[in-house]
Amino acid sequence: MSHPHPELGPPPPLPAGGLRIVALGGLGEIGRNMAVFEYDGRLLVVDCGVLFPEPDQPGVDLILPDFEYIRDRLDDIEAVVLTHAHEDHIGAVPYLLRERADIPLVGSRLTLGLIESKLTEHRIQPVKVEVAEGTRRRFGPFECEFFAVNHSIPDALAVALRTPAGIVLHTGDFKMDQLPLDGRLTDLGGFARLGAEGVDLLMSDSTNSEVPGFVPSERTISPVIDEVFRSAAKRIIVACFASHVHRVQQIFDAAEENGRKVALIGRSMVRNMGVARELGYLRVPPGLLVDSREIEEWPPEDVVLICTGSQGEPMAALSRMANRDHPIRVAEGDTVVLASSLVPGNETAVNKVINGLTRWGARVIHKGNATVHVSGHAAAGELLYVLNLTKPSNFMPVHGEWRHMRAHAKLAALTGVPDDHIVIAEDGVVVDLVDGRARVTGAVQCGYVYVDGSSVGAVTDVALKDRRILGDEGFISVVVVVDSTTGKVTGGPEIYARGSGIEIEAFDSVIPLIESALEDTAADGVADLQQMRRVTRRIVGRWVSDTYRRRPMIIPVVVEV
Amino acid sequence: MSHPHPELGPPPPLPAGGLRIVALGGLGEIGRNMAVFEYDGRLLVVDCGVLFPEPDQPGVDLILPDFEYIRDRLDDIEAVVLTHAHEDHIGAVPYLLRERADIPLVGSRLTLGLIESKLTEHRIQPVKVEVAEGTRRRFGPFECEFFAVNHSIPDALAVALRTPAGIVLHTGDFKMDQLPLDGRLTDLGGFARLGAEGVDLLMSDSTNSEVPGFVPSERTISPVIDEVFRSAAKRIIVACFASHVHRVQQIFDAAEENGRKVALIGRSMVRNMGVARELGYLRVPPGLLVDSREIEEWPPEDVVLICTGSQGEPMAALSRMANRDHPIRVAEGDTVVLASSLVPGNETAVNKVINGLTRWGARVIHKGNATVHVSGHAAAGELLYVLNLTKPSNFMPVHGEWRHMRAHAKLAALTGVPDDHIVIAEDGVVVDLVDGRARVTGAVQCGYVYVDGSSVGAVTDVALKDRRILGDEGFISVVVVVDSTTGKVTGGPEIYARGSGIEIEAFDSVIPLIESALEDTAADGVADLQQMRRVTRRIVGRWVSDTYRRRPMIIPVVVEV
Repeated sequence: MSHPHPELGPPPPLPAGGLRIVALGGLGEIGRNMAVFEYDGRLLVVDCGVLFPEPDQPGVDLILPDFEYIRDRLDDIEAVVLTHAHEDHIGAVPYLLRERADIPLVGSRLTLGLIESKLTEHRIQPVKVEVAEGTRRRFGPFECEFFAVNHSIPDALAVALRTPAGIVLHTGDFKMDQLPLDGRLTDLGGFARLGAEGVDLLMSDSTNSEVPGFVPSERTISPVIDEVFRSAAKRIIVACFASHVHRVQQIFDAAEENGRKVALIGRSMVRNMGVARELGYLRVPPGLLVDSREIEEWPPEDVVLICTGSQGEPMAALSRMANRDHPIRVAEGDTVVLASSLVPGNETAVNKVINGLTRWGARVIHKGNATVHVSGHAAAGELLYVLNLTKPSNFMPVHGEWRHMRAHAKLAALTGVPDDHIVIAEDGVVVDLVDGRARVTGAVQCGYVYVDGSSVGAVTDVALKDRRILGDEGFISVVVVVDSTTGKVTGGPEIYARGSGIEIEAFDSVIPLIESALEDTAADGVADLQQMRRVTRRIVGRWVSDTYRRRPMIIPVVVEV
Repeated sequence: MSHPHPELGPPPPLPAGGLRIVALGGLGEIGRNMAVFEYDGRLLVVDCGVLFPEPDQPGVDLILPDFEYIRDRLDDIEAVVLTHAHEDHIGAVPYLLRERADIPLVGSRLTLGLIESKLTEHRIQPVKVEVAEGTRRRFGPFECEFFAVNHSIPDALAVALRTPAGIVLHTGDFKMDQLPLDGRLTDLGGFARLGAEGVDLLMSDSTNSEVPGFVPSERTISPVIDEVFRSAAKRIIVACFASHVHRVQQIFDAAEENGRKVALIGRSMVRNMGVARELGYLRVPPGLLVDSREIEEWPPEDVVLICTGSQGEPMAALSRMANRDHPIRVAEGDTVVLASSLVPGNETAVNKVINGLTRWGARVIHKGNATVHVSGHAAAGELLYVLNLTKPSNFMPVHGEWRHMRAHAKLAALTGVPDDHIVIAEDGVVVDLVDGRARVTGAVQCGYVYVDGSSVGAVTDVALKDRRILGDEGFISVVVVVDSTTGKVTGGPEIYARGSGIEIEAFDSVIPLIESALEDTAADGVADLQQMRRVTRRIVGRWVSDTYRRRPMIIPVVVEV
């Protein structure tokens, strides 16, 4: 997908009294959510998350929103509102704070608790502004009102922004569980009140807009978990997201009832549940938790392990158990529960884990064969409620790929939002809300910013293209040494190849071809290093293509001595 | 997954009167199906297919069964029985025939027609033995009886092998559509008769053993296709497998009824439908087909394109349309139908295609939002019928990953096959049927054989490991020239890097470190090239790791002049 819209140029200046909205991530992709609001020269940011790389972005650890648009305007930022503590909403905060450390972070108690413990690892002490549902707070020209929403992490918020340009409601991620485990409902009453007041623009979560109907309650999982505990002969191993406090609570409760001890495995699981417990979001029965290093001392039928790795991450404990590369040896009679969604892109990795565990005799329970997970995002039937209650004058689907944004736009049209009041934007597209109308007015730079190891932005799309070629075909390097005074070849050609699948002896047949081509080059006069490289590349490239029908990267190296 | 079972050694000699079964592919994976039967020193092969590579096998085109086990015994092969013409059952035949060209290929009329047209491209003229359901034919000691089975390609067969060791029924791939479009039912009556006679070993398709219930009839797709044709405003583009003759027939019929012209796009689609038409398996209404180069001359509302690329293959027409890299410009009002399964591993690629097409305004219909595909493999409910009708003394699940084989084994146990008469084997595991009992007796070599470009088996697991490192991290090459008489460095160090994400200027800081380390080496006496390489690798490796927290491949090159 191209970023930005190819046909869009830079936007005109924002008219006085207008509100500008630019998403630097999250539109056209699931991840790195970040929306920048501008009014009267001041900025408010909603969320600042990371995106996880796809197979054509090899070796990349994380992808950040492109901060270029705000880099010269960091001092204009009033605050960053964090709707909840999932990585795709908070993961890029450490990188933003590196550019300006004292940007206030606004969020609920748990959200701030989790981001703070994450920032500690980056040695950053953030400026925090705790807010709660049902309250209002002003940041520069932005009057923010917060609403409770229900999601797959506790304490999530939607935010309404009031400026003289109108009222914008940004839902954040939400679902509409009518019997949530913590009793905290999505505040539809608040949405209705806002709708009565007049919502000028609704920005709403599109993740499940293609899914018809309604998401079942988290409660529907409990009987399945009970059945797992009743029928498990040996160990129970549950993998879930390290932030799903309610899911972990359900496992804790079942373990307590069935007299099993629990060990938490995985750094993020231990860290997050520590925060959740401390802040009162997780109830830990006394004596339930056991150190994971001691878990092997208990009989298998008396323990539950709760671990990360539900997405098949190769370094996580679960993958290593599947590969028999972990102290815990999964065996006949063990039960493994993947109590999480299957994030698109992870299907192959998760399938490998399921096969590996099955091979060793474990029973594997996953969302494909039991209700051990419900989605955290409202489905089409529920999105219609929000559209009907808020009755927005303008609608902009967010948090989705094209398929999700288009489907959400159709739902909005069905509820009566006029087609020309529905704006589908990609990352970097500028949407201005002026005189009650939201319109696309241009686009700004918004590329992918890759984090690889300790460097941010140094790995470019050119490097990734090289990696794709190297990864698919390997390389062949030809080294030639040339005497700088005579222009004669005095060393080599020597050939080095990796990943090419060509045995080193096979290169014996191309070396004479290179030698004779280089002689021809030299015959033309003094050594032209550029020309020698070109000739070498051409000779070797043609030889590989003719002999092996392959196209490895060819790197001619001519060294002058 | 390890191949073979780590704990298994070479098998003992096969006792007289025993039947040996060794799968060289298809067990523990979906693909490269190939089973070798041995009786009295003679061999019969059932199927010879390819497996498509996974992300951790980069750059590989195809994976073949490992022929090593039969390489010295090619002359013992009586025949290769091909159950049907899908790539995972016939794709490796050209490679087997390269080793011995005159191995008879046994199959139904369409199966042989399709393999023959494929072999023509490899310039091989096969020895063909056409068989039909309800017939018997002897190949050496193997008395083969063929049964009609219903699948997602016409003319598929199951085969029963009779030897003095007993009766083995190999189902091939099958489903049990009770209202198939061509009226050709899976021969349950034949299976029952065989069951009454006594099936000593059942080898049955495990693909859908985890799927409860029954696969709907192909017929259920017709109303959905009709609705697509009725509601499509502009172009209709249907992507499906190039071998799914019935699916293509359904589109042809709907096009005829709605007065649309049809163009076939994709080499394999054109080739296979040509064969199917010629052999009478595909009815083409007169005047229906239009050359794909002329299709743009017709108004969009009068055409249907049928193309390959339903799995998101990047070079196929459909992906190129999604990327606006194809003469056919998908636009608002067009309808695209992905009338195929989503083969595991292709989720990300297909999602990209759906998003790309949606972005340009197309309505995309796929198995996730409409019944435009039904599986070609019997589900659990149907597999039980086969188990109950054949009443096998021994059972061996085939055609599946571990999860599928285990699930199928459970179904067999439920129907009364004793646990110790159920054999789950991996590729290369030797199963002997002796005195009416099937048992694992050992294992033989059975690795992955990679096809890459024109070479077979030259790309090894070592090369793939190099590719994975190169693909994730790139490489850094350091070239140093040494005078062979003085042992002094006379050229370099020069640094070449690709895909490392490190800017070339950054290397300025490591060059002095290399120089000084090499001087220290030289100070110890004459030039030790091995030692110079080691030192260079260590210095650069440590520098990259400390500075960037990355681990690119480091290639020190020391050239003597």
